[in-house]
Order: sequence, then C-alpha cells, then structure tokens
Amino acid sequence: MPPRNALTTAAFLAGVLLAGPAMAQTTVVNQAVTESEVLAAQKAWCDALVGISTTHATQGQPAAKAMAEKVIDAAYGYQMGAVLFKPTLTVAPQTFRTTRAGALAYFVGGDTAFPKDTGFALKGWAKCDVANAAIFIAGDSATTMGNVNITGKDGKVTTVDKTWKFVKDDAGKLRIVVHHSSLPYSGS
Amino acid sequence: MPPRNALTTAAFLAGVLLAGPAMAQTTVVNQAVTESEVLAAQKAWCDALVGISTTHATQGQPAAKAMAEKVIDAAYGYQMGAVLFKPTLTVAPQTFRTTRAGALAYFVGGDTAFPKDTGFALKGWAKCDVANAAIFIAGDSATTMGNVNITGKDGKVTTVDKTWKFVKDDAGKLRIVVHHSSLPYSGS
Amino acid sequence: MPPRNALTTAAFLAGVLLAGPAMAQTTVVNQAVTESEVLAAQKAWCDALVGISTTHATQGQPAAKAMAEKVIDAAYGYQMGAVLFKPTLTVAPQTFRTTRAGALAYFVGGDTAFPKDTGFALKGWAKCDVANAAIFIAGDSATTMGNVNITGKDGKVTTVDKTWKFVKDDAGKLRIVVHHSSLPYSGS
Amino acid sequence: MPPRNALTTAAFLAGVLLAGPAMAQTTVVNQAVTESEVLAAQKAWCDALVGISTTHATQGQPAAKAMAEKVIDAAYGYQMGAVLFKPTLTVAPQTFRTTRAGALAYFVGGDTAFPKDTGFALKGWAKCDVANAAIFIAGDSATTMGNVNITGKDGKVTTVDKTWKFVKDDAGKLRIVVHHSSLPYSGS
Repeated sequence: MPPRNALTTAAFLAGVLLAGPAMAQTTVVNQAVTESEVLAAQKAWCDALVGISTTHATQGQPAAKAMAEKVIDAAYGYQMGAVLFKPTLTVAPQTFRTTRAGALAYFVGGDTAFPKDTGFALKGWAKCDVANAAIFIAGDSATTMGNVNITGKDGKVTTVDKTWKFVKDDAGKLRIVVHHSSLPYSGS
Repeated sequence: MPPRNALTTAAFLAGVLLAGPAMAQTTVVNQAVTESEVLAAQKAWCDALVGISTTHATQGQPAAKAMAEKVIDAAYGYQMGAVLFKPTLTVAPQTFRTTRAGALAYFVGGDTAFPKDTGFALKGWAKCDVANAAIFIAGDSATTMGNVNITGKDGKVTTVDKTWKFVKDDAGKLRIVVHHSSLPYSGS
Repeated sequence: MPPRNALTTAAFLAGVLLAGPAMAQTTVVNQAVTESEVLAAQKAWCDALVGISTTHATQGQPAAKAMAEKVIDAAYGYQMGAVLFKPTLTVAPQTFRTTRAGALAYFVGGDTAFPKDTGFALKGWAKCDVANAAIFIAGDSATTMGNVNITGKDGKVTTVDKTWKFVKDDAGKLRIVVHHSSLPYSGS
Repeated sequence: MPPRNALTTAAFLAGVLLAGPAMAQTTVVNQAVTESEVLAAQKAWCDALVGISTTHATQGQPAAKAMAEKVIDAAYGYQMGAVLFKPTLTVAPQTFRTTRAGALAYFVGGDTAFPKDTGFALKGWAKCDVANAAIFIAGDSATTMGNVNITGKDGKVTTVDKTWKFVKDDAGKLRIVVHHSSLPYSGS
C-alpha cells in the first residue's frame, strides 16, 4: 500500500533548536475524507454506470458483467462483510442487496438466484449527474444525500433520491458501504 | 456530562508489582457503539412516532408538536449543522430536510414554509416495528438498513425501506445523523 | 451547541434542474480535524502553561489553581470518563493521572492525595514552544508527537518528548484525551 | 480480505412478515475495536520482543533482523505513511522513529544511518508483561497507557511507561500507529 497524503511541512525540532536554529521537518499524514474525494467518488460511480451501459450496447452482457464486477470490487466495500445497499428498483423479499452477488445481479441481471433482476446498468444510460443536497464528513466516513439524474438514450431523465456513505480503505480509496436509492414519492 | 462506560477491571500495575504482588485497577472507557444501543435507539424512534400520534389524538396538534420538538432535539443531530433526512413522503423541491424546521414540519405539519406537509406523525399510528436487513458498526457510527412497519389505527400496515446512521454524542447518547426512508418500489 | 463548519457550496438540485437551470445549495458539514486546529490547540496548551505560571507569580497559588481548573475543563477530556495522562515528572504509584484531580494536583500541587506534587505549572515558565516530529490525522482524532520546549524565567530551556491525541467534542473544540510526556533519554 | 465479525442474528424481515411470520436474518458487521483485541495485540508485541531476543541468541543478528521486519510489517502501521514512535532509549536528533527504517534500526541495530542504535530487542529479554493503567476505545481506535515490565536473562526487571494507539486495518487486524515509551522519571 502506498503512503497516503504523507507530506512534510517546515518545523523546528528541539534538538536542532538547542544546537542552533535550523529547519527540520514535520511528517503529516492526513487520512480525513475530503469533499473533493467525495465528489470524485460520486462522479466515478456515474461514469461506471454509463460505462457498463455502453459496454453492454457495444460488446454484450458478458463484457458488461465483467466490467460491473470490476466496478463493484473497486468502489463498494463488500469485502468488509456487507454493504447496506437498497437499489432503486428491487422488491421484497430481495429488496436489500447486502452481498456482492446481489449487487451484481441488480446491475447486470442474468442470475437465477435473483429472478426479477433484468440489469439496471444495461438500460442504455447515456448520462449521469449528481446533485447533492448535503454532504456530512465526520470520523472516518463521508455521507451524501441528494439526487442523481440519469439520462437514457432517448434523452429522458430519471431522478432518484440517493444516500451514499463512503469510507476510506487502507489504500486511501473511498468505498461505498451504504447506498440507499429510491424513486421520488409520487405525491398521492 | 456523565462518564460513559467507565469501568474498571483488575490488573497489575508495575509499581505495585515491584513492591510485591497486589491488585490494581485498569480504567476502561469504551465509546464504541453497540448493537443493543442501536436496537434501543430504533425502538425509541418507533415509540416516539406512536407517542406523537397518540398525543395528537388525545391532546391536539400543539401538544403533538411540542412532543415532536423534544423528540427531534433528543434523537436527531441537527445541532451538528445538518441531518441528512429524506422522509418517506416529501416531494421536490423540498424532498430533503436538512434543517430542524424541515423535520418538524414533516412530522407535525402546520408550517407555511413547508406547504405540502400535513404531519406524518399525526396520522394515527398505533404500532411501529423495525426489521433490520443489516447493521454495520464502524468507527464512531452505526448504520442500519431494513424495513420499518407501521400500523395505523385501522390495522393497515405500511412498510418503508429505511436507512439510519447513528453517532454517539458527548453524553453517550445515539443520535440520528442520516435518515433515508422510502416506499418500496411498486414493481412496474 | 453551535453548528460547526456548516457552509454551503453551489450545486444544482434536480427538482430545480428539471424545471430549468438555477443555482441551489449543498449543505456541507465537515467535522474532520484539521492541521491548523491541531496547531492552535497545541499553542493554547503552551499559552495556558505560561499563563498559570504568570498568574501564580502575580496572584498566588489559589488564583493559579482556579485558572488550571478552567484550563483542564476546557482543554482535556476528563468528562469522557478518563484521560490517558502521563505527566513528565510523576512517579509510581501515581505515575498515570487518569482523573481530573490527578491532573490538577500535577499542575498546581496542594493536594494531600498526591503528596509528591509540587505544581509543575507553578515553576515560573516564561515561554513554551512546540516542535512536532509528526502529526497523524485519522478518523475522529489527531495525534502529534514531538518536542515541547519550555523556557524558565532564568532562560533555561527544558525539552520534553510529548505525544498528544486530540478529539473534537460536540461543540467542535479539540480536547486532549491522551498526553504522554517524558524527559529525553539521557544516553549512557 | 476476509469478512470481519460478520454474523447473523434472527430478525423478522417485512416482506416475510406480511406473507406470514417467519424467521429471517440480520447481517451484522461490527468493526469496533474490543478490549480483548487490544490485550491480545499488546501480548503479541511482548511475545515478539522476547521472540526476537531468543532468535538473536540462538540464530544471530540476521535472523533476528528478519524476524523484526516481519513483526514491524505485521504489527505497526508504517504503510499508512508514518508511525508516531518514540522508543525508550533513542536520543536527539533521532529521537522519533516515524519511518520503518528507524524502527527496525532501533530494534535490531546494524544500520549506519542510525549509528547510536545497538538493537533494543537483542538485549536478551526473557519475559515481557503489560500492566495497563487505562484503555480508551473510541471511534476506529483504542489507546492504552500503563507500564510494560520486561525481564532480562539475569532476572532484572525494567519498567517503562508506555502509550500505544491501535487502529484496525482492512483485514481486521490491530496495528500500532502511536507508540511512546519512556523510562520512569527518577525523582530528583
């Protein structure tokens, strides 16, 4: 693993000070999650959704599935034991996809264990934008809430209400550990 | 503020050891969030919802509103700057209730700044149960995802998909800092 | 409690976007500890040490004690249940001062329960500087290690090796929860 | 990476509840540091110290050095960018060993870049015990303060004042990120 955010700033070390003024170094390691890291991770999710759709259109489902597996392994935290994932369009009794298999089935379908999944990421998405209502950074995590607007190839925009919680892994990369997505309430 | 989880376990302190064996104490402070604290906080939320409904039915909206204010101040983290709250039935452009005023209006209505709010907690709820799909405890927080089932006075059960993130405040009490609630996807 | 670090940045909200472009706001709350907060907290500790010494010289021990109590209550985390405090000059079996009373006795003496304490902060300190070797910010805390150089009224500099761990309380203020101070190894 | 602390407890899921009572599962992932994990990590450090000494006595310095490298890589957090390590016997201007090389030199010597290091772990230690004054678990870390008593082959016990901060890595293993060790103040 590479060091993360290790940098040095000028400081006086005592041993040096007593022998006569001289510049020494303070090693600073800062693992705090930053807002720009959060925005980059959100953009990466959007780009991956469009990427899987494009791959599906040009290379077929197996290629899209292979890409989705890479995305899940790189961007989610299933290796921590579970992800709290409520995708937009799942239904009971398989609403919550706490396992990697459940996430993969949702994105690209083709898993008989999840018979209602037709592959959300295969639906020809052309564009994806995030509009955060709020970002809360605290402790070792950052949580966001807001809308994600995804545009189909026909130009129709689907808006979802979405909450993401990200944590930084040992390699310094943000991973999604909570993901709750829902269609807006339709009124009444 | 009272100490939280401060307890002592037996251990040998060196100064004592060298003078001859004797029991000393290790002070242990453990601020980690526990599963039972999470379950208790969820139950408290459910109890509060039913309590506000009951208060409304027996004492009217002003009494229900006063109770809701106490609940919000005790159970949510608005004093931290914002709560990421997406209530079940809100609509754009007031979907996200990051302020205390927005949460209060959602629960008990009566705020002209939130004209579509009729008071979710005033709808005669008689029962509320939590069915967690997953609980993830890490760092200074715990996140839960699952269903909450609320029963009206007519016995009809409404199920929502719900995500909560709790953090422990300086007094050792869990507070909701993220709350995303949505009606289940209706299929298609 | 006041909100901490609550600010807003420009963003597009979906409901607004769909109705036509318009600027909306993202609420950002960032509780991460920053390097500048750490440096300020260290400087405050130094200033307090000199302040107690000055108060002692000009107003006597009771005034110095009153000031030390305020400093401990504002800058340490004893209200969390314990502080892991190993002062520079304590000896067994009272080496570790995990209680507020033990810290106060170390700084200003006058407590028969800590008979060897003569009041470290009463020794006429005129100047105090921090020279960090390293700062590590992670999760909800920041830890520093390095030298603190304190100058007596005679101009003599005493250097100590010091580790501090700070956490941010609910009011957004850093508090010392770990403090290990020791005289440098004399070699030989 | 293996899942850590992933277990399941019985719970009712709503989809199941509505169709008729049946048991479902809650996935629980708990990454909180526990007191027993802390005590085990401390014991592992002690065992490693004695192990390196024994290896040195029976197989020589190169074998001891190889073992020390494994210990450092497994038990410390140098891969995070730095460890705040103040060993017991170092002197200025190399008091603080924020790099892996500095830690290795301290434990087994033989590094011309650290000319005063003779190898603390090579000194024939036969026994090592920890006597905690306090343990503080919070957020993603646990900090301990107390004495470590190490016994030489001649039966003489050396007591040090020691602070350790541990964090849990992605594999669920505690790593030392802060380590301040000092000889007790000798009085005066």
